[in-house]
Amino acid sequence: MQRDPDPRMDPATDARLVSDMRQVVRRSVEAVLPEAAVREALAREAFAQGLQKARRVTLLSVGKAAWRMAKAALEALAGREVQGLVVTKYGHAMGDLPGLELIESAHPVPDANSLRAGARALELADAAGEGDAVLLLLSGGGSALMEDLPAGVTLAQLAELTRALLACGADIRQINAVRKHLSNVKGGRLAQRCAPARVYCVALSDVLGDAPDAIASGPAAPDASTSEEALRVLAQSGYAADGAMRAALSRETPKALPGVELAVTGSVRLLAQAAAQACRDLGYAPLVLTASMDCEAREAGALLAAMARDAAAGASSLRPPCALILGGETVVHLRGHGRGGRNQELAAAAGLALDGVPGVCVCSLGSDGTDGPTDAAGGIVTGAWAARCRAAGLDPRAHLDDNDTYPLLARTDALLVTGPTGTNVNDVAVALIR
Amino acid sequence: MQRDPDPRMDPATDARLVSDMRQVVRRSVEAVLPEAAVREALAREAFAQGLQKARRVTLLSVGKAAWRMAKAALEALAGREVQGLVVTKYGHAMGDLPGLELIESAHPVPDANSLRAGARALELADAAGEGDAVLLLLSGGGSALMEDLPAGVTLAQLAELTRALLACGADIRQINAVRKHLSNVKGGRLAQRCAPARVYCVALSDVLGDAPDAIASGPAAPDASTSEEALRVLAQSGYAADGAMRAALSRETPKALPGVELAVTGSVRLLAQAAAQACRDLGYAPLVLTASMDCEAREAGALLAAMARDAAAGASSLRPPCALILGGETVVHLRGHGRGGRNQELAAAAGLALDGVPGVCVCSLGSDGTDGPTDAAGGIVTGAWAARCRAAGLDPRAHLDDNDTYPLLARTDALLVTGPTGTNVNDVAVALIR
Repeated sequence: MQRDPDPRMDPATDARLVSDMRQVVRRSVEAVLPEAAVREALAREAFAQGLQKARRVTLLSVGKAAWRMAKAALEALAGREVQGLVVTKYGHAMGDLPGLELIESAHPVPDANSLRAGARALELADAAGEGDAVLLLLSGGGSALMEDLPAGVTLAQLAELTRALLACGADIRQINAVRKHLSNVKGGRLAQRCAPARVYCVALSDVLGDAPDAIASGPAAPDASTSEEALRVLAQSGYAADGAMRAALSRETPKALPGVELAVTGSVRLLAQAAAQACRDLGYAPLVLTASMDCEAREAGALLAAMARDAAAGASSLRPPCALILGGETVVHLRGHGRGGRNQELAAAAGLALDGVPGVCVCSLGSDGTDGPTDAAGGIVTGAWAARCRAAGLDPRAHLDDNDTYPLLARTDALLVTGPTGTNVNDVAVALIR
Repeated sequence: MQRDPDPRMDPATDARLVSDMRQVVRRSVEAVLPEAAVREALAREAFAQGLQKARRVTLLSVGKAAWRMAKAALEALAGREVQGLVVTKYGHAMGDLPGLELIESAHPVPDANSLRAGARALELADAAGEGDAVLLLLSGGGSALMEDLPAGVTLAQLAELTRALLACGADIRQINAVRKHLSNVKGGRLAQRCAPARVYCVALSDVLGDAPDAIASGPAAPDASTSEEALRVLAQSGYAADGAMRAALSRETPKALPGVELAVTGSVRLLAQAAAQACRDLGYAPLVLTASMDCEAREAGALLAAMARDAAAGASSLRPPCALILGGETVVHLRGHGRGGRNQELAAAAGLALDGVPGVCVCSLGSDGTDGPTDAAGGIVTGAWAARCRAAGLDPRAHLDDNDTYPLLARTDALLVTGPTGTNVNDVAVALIR
């Protein structure tokens, strides 16, 4: 069946909305790049003063963004002599950094280099003394990239134990209680080893909720779990632990770390706040509705579109010009065989729900710049998008049902492409309403 | 695995939230009962004055709530002599009403009594003259319960044509364009026949968006579709129409109805607004985010919970005490074999996402009082609900996955039971945040 064009649609308004949205996207990503996050944290008074008056500064940077964070820190500390270690994923180091050793190791499953990195980090921690500062830069993946196990415990045992815990239905909190008690660096232990040196920790969050003990398994965060809990979980799992493992689990993790200054940054909350600020600067009153969205991507898109549609029509509490912002990380339950990603699905579903609705633009953006197995970061749609799909001979509903949103968005000039950003603080979806 | 109780949960706060929520539910439903809707509309100045100065008042009440709307109108017009007709579904008339004829007919597929009702309504419309008023009360189902077809067109032909249109992929707008042009009462034609009498129409909305031409197929609303469009859709469907049908489709529906005063009421928007007012009165700053939510129930529950959770934690733009309100009608794609309904699924999914979160209560409510094939109207949960399920030996995730939320909510005292309300203006989901 053919359909008539919708007389309410105004191409000029659409073009302006899309242009505004692209600015919002650019400024949101900039705010959470590893370099920006490190600069912002080191400019905080406690960090700037503490590092300035330290006798020596030891830098430990661990995670997938470790190289870039270390480089930004060296620039921010220009003029100071800095020594230390950068631990990142294979292929993620982009050259030598003055004064810093470099170890590349495996993610998501730790390897021998992860253990080498853990041992070297503990040596540096031990060497730091009274009046010294350890600048600890953490990013996603740090948990696997650096590890040090108690005497008599092996990586193979750790893998076996993790499988047993998963099989018996332990939740992530319970698994972490065990893993932190089984490590010499996790659960605050690396920071503990730095004493009497002070620790300045910048954690680039890739976890919903930004719990500092969850980022890279919290080498500088007090551990809320207890040895008793770890042993109880072990018993419930039925795993036959040997004496070395039992002894290790019996050692308590630190419950307070007075010598540590912690800055959690670059989180999805910051991403959402940066989007809100960019919207405000462009004249849209912003509302950050959540920073921990975790539902099905297409349903989030449909609900965001319903909110935006009703705001545009004056059928809700919101008055245009305004913006709605959802941060978090949606999921996609695959049903088809096409190409796409969760952000592209969210945008396409919103585009379908906005078919013919004037004055609204929705985008969804993965902050790492790579949404699913594609070279796009997400999608950007208006009420005119579904008609553009049909005009191109594409059925948007059928493509969405086949999880095939990449070609749909690509052929209608609705992809968001940023290139890999080197950061990963989850996603943000934005609706602009005029 | 066993879990420890969450020390942040406070039973007193929870109890107060639940008690507040039950008040919000009661007041929201009251606002959209057919009686309240008729009283509210007849109290509007244009209605009160127009009906008062009319020489005679003819009442036509059509739809599943027709009897109750007519009774409320007679009470509101107490002292006036009123004549007319009530057309409702089999079993929905609850006794004689003074001065009014009563016809019961079939829904959702019209029958011979539907035609009898249509013919009688047109006779009454024709009999209304200069200075008279026709009070037209419309509720859901009116489209099937009352019909009058052009000479030479039968109900059987109409059913065949509808099947052909559905088979060729026509959308609801296209099907309605054809059906309105094929009817003597739909698409504004009943109101047109009332002229020169003035028409006062109260439409109890059961459609998302409240388009007046969609409620009972708009017997008193100008029709936006054209004869040309209806004929084009007919041609594209390939249906072999005879001369009588073609002639009928060639007659244009009214594009303006100057003698009609229209009040759309009892809509999901009113339901959401009533919920907002009740929240405000209890000290929660309300935000109606949409009145046209139409996504998957459990995903709406998860996203509403994420918003509420972040509002409670100060991680969004909202500051407690506040309330979030979503109106609309979600859908459930059945995957299991249990008992439940869309509102119960929304509430259960929210309860899972709120596991251990203090200071939040979420409910979802079907305004008709019957959610799915159950005797409950919906569900009401707090952050303590999931633990209550586990304490009762129930796995809330497994029950939700089996579409089996009714027993889950029933055994944890989390059902909302209102009894059948006699109105159906979709659903409302509310989050209260302290």
